[in-house]
Amino acid sequence: MYDVFQTDRLIDLWLTEDIGYCDLTAQLMIEAHETGAFYMNAREPLIVAGIDVAARVFRRYDSTLDVVVHVKDGDKVGPGTVLADVRGNARSVLTAERTALNIVQRLSGIANLTAQYVAAIAGTRARLIDTRKTMPGLRMLEKHAVTCGGGLNHRLGLDTGVMIKDNHIAVCGGIAKAVQRARRQLPVLTKLEVECDRLEQVGEALEAGVDVIMLDNMSIEDMTRAVEMVGGRVQIEASGGISLATIGAIAKTGVDYISTSKINQAASCVDIGLDDTK
Amino acid sequence: MYDVFQTDRLIDLWLTEDIGYCDLTAQLMIEAHETGAFYMNAREPLIVAGIDVAARVFRRYDSTLDVVVHVKDGDKVGPGTVLADVRGNARSVLTAERTALNIVQRLSGIANLTAQYVAAIAGTRARLIDTRKTMPGLRMLEKHAVTCGGGLNHRLGLDTGVMIKDNHIAVCGGIAKAVQRARRQLPVLTKLEVECDRLEQVGEALEAGVDVIMLDNMSIEDMTRAVEMVGGRVQIEASGGISLATIGAIAKTGVDYISTSKINQAASCVDIGLDDTK
Amino acid sequence: MYDVFQTDRLIDLWLTEDIGYCDLTAQLMIEAHETGAFYMNAREPLIVAGIDVAARVFRRYDSTLDVVVHVKDGDKVGPGTVLADVRGNARSVLTAERTALNIVQRLSGIANLTAQYVAAIAGTRARLIDTRKTMPGLRMLEKHAVTCGGGLNHRLGLDTGVMIKDNHIAVCGGIAKAVQRARRQLPVLTKLEVECDRLEQVGEALEAGVDVIMLDNMSIEDMTRAVEMVGGRVQIEASGGISLATIGAIAKTGVDYISTSKINQAASCVDIGLDDTK
Amino acid sequence: MYDVFQTDRLIDLWLTEDIGYCDLTAQLMIEAHETGAFYMNAREPLIVAGIDVAARVFRRYDSTLDVVVHVKDGDKVGPGTVLADVRGNARSVLTAERTALNIVQRLSGIANLTAQYVAAIAGTRARLIDTRKTMPGLRMLEKHAVTCGGGLNHRLGLDTGVMIKDNHIAVCGGIAKAVQRARRQLPVLTKLEVECDRLEQVGEALEAGVDVIMLDNMSIEDMTRAVEMVGGRVQIEASGGISLATIGAIAKTGVDYISTSKINQAASCVDIGLDDTK
Amino acid sequence: MYDVFQTDRLIDLWLTEDIGYCDLTAQLMIEAHETGAFYMNAREPLIVAGIDVAARVFRRYDSTLDVVVHVKDGDKVGPGTVLADVRGNARSVLTAERTALNIVQRLSGIANLTAQYVAAIAGTRARLIDTRKTMPGLRMLEKHAVTCGGGLNHRLGLDTGVMIKDNHIAVCGGIAKAVQRARRQLPVLTKLEVECDRLEQVGEALEAGVDVIMLDNMSIEDMTRAVEMVGGRVQIEASGGISLATIGAIAKTGVDYISTSKINQAASCVDIGLDDTK
Amino acid sequence: MYDVFQTDRLIDLWLTEDIGYCDLTAQLMIEAHETGAFYMNAREPLIVAGIDVAARVFRRYDSTLDVVVHVKDGDKVGPGTVLADVRGNARSVLTAERTALNIVQRLSGIANLTAQYVAAIAGTRARLIDTRKTMPGLRMLEKHAVTCGGGLNHRLGLDTGVMIKDNHIAVCGGIAKAVQRARRQLPVLTKLEVECDRLEQVGEALEAGVDVIMLDNMSIEDMTRAVEMVGGRVQIEASGGISLATIGAIAKTGVDYISTSKINQAASCVDIGLDDTK
Repeated sequence: MYDVFQTDRLIDLWLTEDIGYCDLTAQLMIEAHETGAFYMNAREPLIVAGIDVAARVFRRYDSTLDVVVHVKDGDKVGPGTVLADVRGNARSVLTAERTALNIVQRLSGIANLTAQYVAAIAGTRARLIDTRKTMPGLRMLEKHAVTCGGGLNHRLGLDTGVMIKDNHIAVCGGIAKAVQRARRQLPVLTKLEVECDRLEQVGEALEAGVDVIMLDNMSIEDMTRAVEMVGGRVQIEASGGISLATIGAIAKTGVDYISTSKINQAASCVDIGLDDTK
Repeated sequence: MYDVFQTDRLIDLWLTEDIGYCDLTAQLMIEAHETGAFYMNAREPLIVAGIDVAARVFRRYDSTLDVVVHVKDGDKVGPGTVLADVRGNARSVLTAERTALNIVQRLSGIANLTAQYVAAIAGTRARLIDTRKTMPGLRMLEKHAVTCGGGLNHRLGLDTGVMIKDNHIAVCGGIAKAVQRARRQLPVLTKLEVECDRLEQVGEALEAGVDVIMLDNMSIEDMTRAVEMVGGRVQIEASGGISLATIGAIAKTGVDYISTSKINQAASCVDIGLDDTK
Repeated sequence: MYDVFQTDRLIDLWLTEDIGYCDLTAQLMIEAHETGAFYMNAREPLIVAGIDVAARVFRRYDSTLDVVVHVKDGDKVGPGTVLADVRGNARSVLTAERTALNIVQRLSGIANLTAQYVAAIAGTRARLIDTRKTMPGLRMLEKHAVTCGGGLNHRLGLDTGVMIKDNHIAVCGGIAKAVQRARRQLPVLTKLEVECDRLEQVGEALEAGVDVIMLDNMSIEDMTRAVEMVGGRVQIEASGGISLATIGAIAKTGVDYISTSKINQAASCVDIGLDDTK
Repeated sequence: MYDVFQTDRLIDLWLTEDIGYCDLTAQLMIEAHETGAFYMNAREPLIVAGIDVAARVFRRYDSTLDVVVHVKDGDKVGPGTVLADVRGNARSVLTAERTALNIVQRLSGIANLTAQYVAAIAGTRARLIDTRKTMPGLRMLEKHAVTCGGGLNHRLGLDTGVMIKDNHIAVCGGIAKAVQRARRQLPVLTKLEVECDRLEQVGEALEAGVDVIMLDNMSIEDMTRAVEMVGGRVQIEASGGISLATIGAIAKTGVDYISTSKINQAASCVDIGLDDTK
Repeated sequence: MYDVFQTDRLIDLWLTEDIGYCDLTAQLMIEAHETGAFYMNAREPLIVAGIDVAARVFRRYDSTLDVVVHVKDGDKVGPGTVLADVRGNARSVLTAERTALNIVQRLSGIANLTAQYVAAIAGTRARLIDTRKTMPGLRMLEKHAVTCGGGLNHRLGLDTGVMIKDNHIAVCGGIAKAVQRARRQLPVLTKLEVECDRLEQVGEALEAGVDVIMLDNMSIEDMTRAVEMVGGRVQIEASGGISLATIGAIAKTGVDYISTSKINQAASCVDIGLDDTK
Repeated sequence: MYDVFQTDRLIDLWLTEDIGYCDLTAQLMIEAHETGAFYMNAREPLIVAGIDVAARVFRRYDSTLDVVVHVKDGDKVGPGTVLADVRGNARSVLTAERTALNIVQRLSGIANLTAQYVAAIAGTRARLIDTRKTMPGLRMLEKHAVTCGGGLNHRLGLDTGVMIKDNHIAVCGGIAKAVQRARRQLPVLTKLEVECDRLEQVGEALEAGVDVIMLDNMSIEDMTRAVEMVGGRVQIEASGGISLATIGAIAKTGVDYISTSKINQAASCVDIGLDDTK
């Protein structure tokens, strides 16, 4: 889920960043009228994310380019898979190439890593969710990549959810007062989540009436207890210290969501290249 | 090396991305007049990159915030090191926090990984250099982070260097003709590099008169031979298949530069947090 | 609730719109060094909204202007009340005057009308809420004005809430299927609302598990029945055909929210002027 | 009169405002390939203004949408009139719908109210004119709407006309000196207007040589006298305290123009909807 | 006459254009903490235009720079005159230097050339005016420079004056009909000018009721006749084939304005430098 | 060499500058549906530069316009040559006309003047190069125009080359230390140039290892000596006091490049018009 209209605005910035004055090499080496045929291909197994964004990079730079996409976001493909064909003005293709590849390599890398975390909790009720720890400027697309890998988005930005943390609670003088303060002007379609460090807080949060309770860095035992206390009345998110080694056990406690910044902050780009069709 | 004036334009976009309509939580939970004192601290050993950018995020969002930076980019610090103090309007600090942390975590992560590659070639003449494989929208800052880790920048964008690759050579009918074509309008302060896949091409490039020769995916033996052929007349860059395991041997061939996209594409964010001073 | 950083970006556009090349009159008639003292005053009873935005217009145009605000958003003031003092460069004050007044007149107008609707349902459990029917470009500030008048915001934009309407239901083949489809990737902190035209749909929505049910253009009798059916399990919004004449009766049905576009679309600007201090 | 190229820049801002991250509902509920056929229709009698702007909103968001407009700005239509047909990608239509409707509802509302004022002075030489009291960000389009309703524009912004007011006169030491100062650098195609509160000032203004004289809040008697004094040598604008009740009598005094902010500041949006073609 | 707020937006673009990624030389050669003292000085006799704009370039790039301006726009200065002092961070001064000098050199060049034309018509009633033939992106500032040289502005852009040319007349079927069409929606403070190629047209224009008549490429005799015909009832602009050799004779015909694009299109930059205070 | 994608961003700014609210004349005088056929023609002998940019101005304003370009940048054409045909909506053509002409007149003027300087050094090894003394906002296009006239670009901006000047040398304590400092982080594809005022400095620069040596304001004798000293090991640029009278003798000294700001700062616009096809 992302908006293509907003994406075009991002693409303009990215192209400006890489091109600057002009692509000196393309302008010097390639005649204005020359054309070429290229294909974008996966050079390792990966889950596709952002292939349409990459295609838009080419089209946005030069609307006469013919870009045909052969896969769709979320597809799991093997090495050698042709993801898209790009044909037309050779200068344009080579000038836009790096920007197009950079984004699809990053997003597919996120989808890939997300899928590993999702696989580690398969069969449980828990769903993997993301955080706001994304690359500045790429929030929308990185969160889209998470969904391509099978994860779910937590909140999109500071305006799409209320998250009461420990220092908010301290300022307000307890969870009950904090929730009461939040309710005064909470937009109708916005949920309210409270971060709990201790089991007592879970009880307070339940009583105060929140939509989601976050268990922050709790032990497996405490999380299990919290799930029992809540009894399905509100949703529960487990957070803190999540890794591929620990996530399975956490999921089995019965929490609804497990959030981790790793799927964005520790994702490596995957290898996708653009080759000449010859 | 980066420009703070341009950085402010990026910061505006990042803040807009995260905030959207407004930081609902901060507005609901914290009174407009409340103040706070926070400190940004390293939670693991790291090489600092982007700490002034993070400081500018806070100041750009609210010019009344008092941000004091205690380290400088390139510093190697241990866990627990206080990187900066942030004092003032509590709402403002909490609203800008995530954006500030996201960028310094990313940039320091790049510096960290770069330093590992740089350490692996210490004592050789080779210098580690980067590529254009950076996150869209973060080129300038990611290249700055590479220099914080001890690396060097290759070219900044498509307008700051000419790089003749295999398909350019094919289009022009050989290296000699390609270089000749490039020389016609090459800006005076711009260098010309040619990518060579085989040793014969190294000879052709030398004869054609280039500034830098890139050895693409050559064997250690061929790189050694290429270094002998060139004999210091032009600079040599080794590229392709670089890893921490292989880079030491490559450096010993006597090349001037070794480039890798890994320092940007495979860098994980480091753990830096913002804590309440209490 | 609104973000001052985002507001500054809007102010830049507004000033550019009014000024264009330059304020010919101010430049021709007033010497560059002349100063003046002015005050912004209410010329009719009103509820203040946007006074800080108006103050920022002056400061944004010329950071040397001294603007002191004497009231706060949400205050109910009588005619003749001085809302703010504006002192400094006379050209700057006169150039920015119209833009500053235009916005505070509009926003206070919305707060005023909202307060009338809110008063009409005082003593009931119902809260007045707004819609997305706002002036293009003024969404954030108009929704803020609604809260100044005692109303609540529904959703801020298309990314901050999911609202399933009749044609979505038709496309999906019923409410149950529509909700199921929405749940697949609904961000964790986003609520789900379904529009119901008939009482049967209320039952379907309850069973499907939504967060809010909107009763669209229902009779008082049907709304009363719906409230009984729901029994407090989810929230209920009444919508359609709301006026000052009808809203009281609707509120007595026991719904949680009553939404109307009138508070934005039918609000008149209030009379606020800038006068010379003499 | 408005420029479509500039309008596209406004539309981009409006769409960004409403969409943010993405239209969650459309993305979740509607498949990417689904299409639909909709029509925009008047739900009350109205004078059309901004129908082409609304059409551009759809096309700007998605250039593949097929929008056919059936009326033109300035047309007077009855309830049920189909203003335009919108066909194509269903997600795109629903995402852009609210922005498109919001603007045409606002502009037609202004045209409607303007037409009532214009009708009240029919048969006199007076023409109804607008002011700079427009919604920030909508100046160009709101002034266009005034012309759709039969009104005329006064000045477009601070750079398209010089308007000497009381405090300018005070600063310069009288009307004669003020006009003299203005004439020094007045652009050739720009007119000069002076605001007069008293009859003596009308004489001074005539002597000083202005293009338009504004009678500010004068009585019917004084206005009549002013018209006689001027004797057609320059144009006269009546301003201040204009309402549908008073405007007829003012027009009969023989003034050339009557200006009111009400047509913009007190206009309500008209009811225009988008319905599914079924 | 120009607006400093709008000027800041231009300055941002100019700095971005010159700096790009960063000022490599300043960053490499100068330590971040080094300071310097520089002065901007005239290296030839010139009329100053844009000195405050140049000062703003420095301040906009780095608000800590201390810039003191010693002259004002319109001043006639000799070679060696210190126009401004610039003190502070050495990197910042050197990075912004070229942009600051480029604009003040261009604007002062326009003022200089304008002053020569103005001198050539001294003692006549004619005033020198400019056209819309300015450098794209510099309209406001170039027109300001014309006033610094003693000229007057014609219209600022397409929205600040109506100018009926031959093809408009042809389309409408004569001057009378063209003027009638224009009057229908002409904004109140906007003047109407008609271009006349022949003497008969002058009569038609007078009768139709225009504000200004432009005599396009007429002989001295025809211009003299036209001035007689008009008899002071409307203003007259002479245009076409103006040069320093011909302008004196044209001015003596009694026209009110003489317009030429030369003052913008043929102006050379004057020599202004930034030197180290040592 | 310039980038069309970046050019479109400039064009948007230029059109906005000229049009503002709207082209009042075109809107008032020409019906929306009227079409016309026009041709852009050279009114004096000139070297074409920017004809495609002018064509893009028309297309960018109205994508339905049919613009056919008959020449290409760098062509030398005589008076009366039709450079392009422009057909379609008459309002659109007339609204965009001035912006399109302004840019092609400026750029062709630069190409023209450049060609005169280039002709004056024909037969020597010297190539004419430009500087950063270009009109703010037009850097990329003005440098392109220089290449159309047969010149070469020096550096594009502050990020595409390092240029060590006298005050840098002073700060660092000599050329050797300055070069050493620069080499620490010089991007791989960026050249290093040092400005030398005296012959001793040429020797120091050679020893320090630079890519280009600039001889600043040296006598013919010193330049000849410098060329001998360098002996082809690095490139030499002559700068300072270049004119059509002196450039020939300078070229004969054997320098590689001669730079002058005159080709940009003293270029007059050439006469190119748009005429109706009748």
